[in-house]
Amino acid sequence: MSGGNPVVDPDAVIFRDALIFRDAERADVPAIVALLADDVLGASREAGQVDDAYWAAFAMLAGDARNRVIVADAGGQVVGTLQLTLIPGLSRHGMLRAQIEGVRVASGGRGRGLGRQMIEWAVAQARQAGCGLVQLTSDKQRPGAIRFYESLGFTATHEGLKLSLLR
Amino acid sequence: MSGGNPVVDPDAVIFRDALIFRDAERADVPAIVALLADDVLGASREAGQVDDAYWAAFAMLAGDARNRVIVADAGGQVVGTLQLTLIPGLSRHGMLRAQIEGVRVASGGRGRGLGRQMIEWAVAQARQAGCGLVQLTSDKQRPGAIRFYESLGFTATHEGLKLSLLR
Repeated sequence: MSGGNPVVDPDAVIFRDALIFRDAERADVPAIVALLADDVLGASREAGQVDDAYWAAFAMLAGDARNRVIVADAGGQVVGTLQLTLIPGLSRHGMLRAQIEGVRVASGGRGRGLGRQMIEWAVAQARQAGCGLVQLTSDKQRPGAIRFYESLGFTATHEGLKLSLLR
Repeated sequence: MSGGNPVVDPDAVIFRDALIFRDAERADVPAIVALLADDVLGASREAGQVDDAYWAAFAMLAGDARNRVIVADAGGQVVGTLQLTLIPGLSRHGMLRAQIEGVRVASGGRGRGLGRQMIEWAVAQARQAGCGLVQLTSDKQRPGAIRFYESLGFTATHEGLKLSLLR
């Protein structure tokens, strides 16, 4: 990733080629895992290498039409990722909702509008799929991320409650 | 639902028969929709009757192994409901997560431990499915609900952000 090499101009690395958003392929998994780990909270949550747990997860995702792992691809380089999950449900008049998880932008791309483009693209995908709502949770330790989502029209109406089952 | 008839003793209605938790069937949809609507926030979000939107949503749910609508059944009467969604993902070392949505307890059953039993049952299902995390969001207008989930071990580490696509 560009963030690892300060000599490289991040603009040149990330925006040299047209940016496209596409579904991740198996070959993208190492780059996605590197992005997930290159994060202040992600660093402790991810394994140092791409092991069987990641491959098993990717296999589950690949076979599920309602779960898409998306990559932002700039000339073959993965510079961002997110997961888009469609959740059908009876509540809110049988409304289909979209959920966004695992958002990451390569260090060199942060503050350059890539995250905004990526979320706007995901929201458009959700609209096209017939969703009435897009939802996500953001760690309260990331005030900048919360302001970012609010600037995109999201409102923090809910508490995001988590219960770990690990250990 | 018991809430509609103040003459009936809620204890008699709800705990006369053994409580079981089971996957909803098509015939349960009207009772589930009635529970969703019998709520201060749900009242404005739900339709007055079970129309095509609910049936279409139920059909989407019925064909999806990762989405289960659960009912609490007391002698054939639906006294509670929730939806349990399994979400695979690459993040957190390829961790499978469980999400709970659409939690409702019949008016007569509130404050009687039914909600607690239902959530504990859902958490046990998530554990059995191999999940590392259970998550849900709760509207900040429901402080009692938030305290309830915290009493069950959930922590409100995240902001729950929503973006409506309706209208």
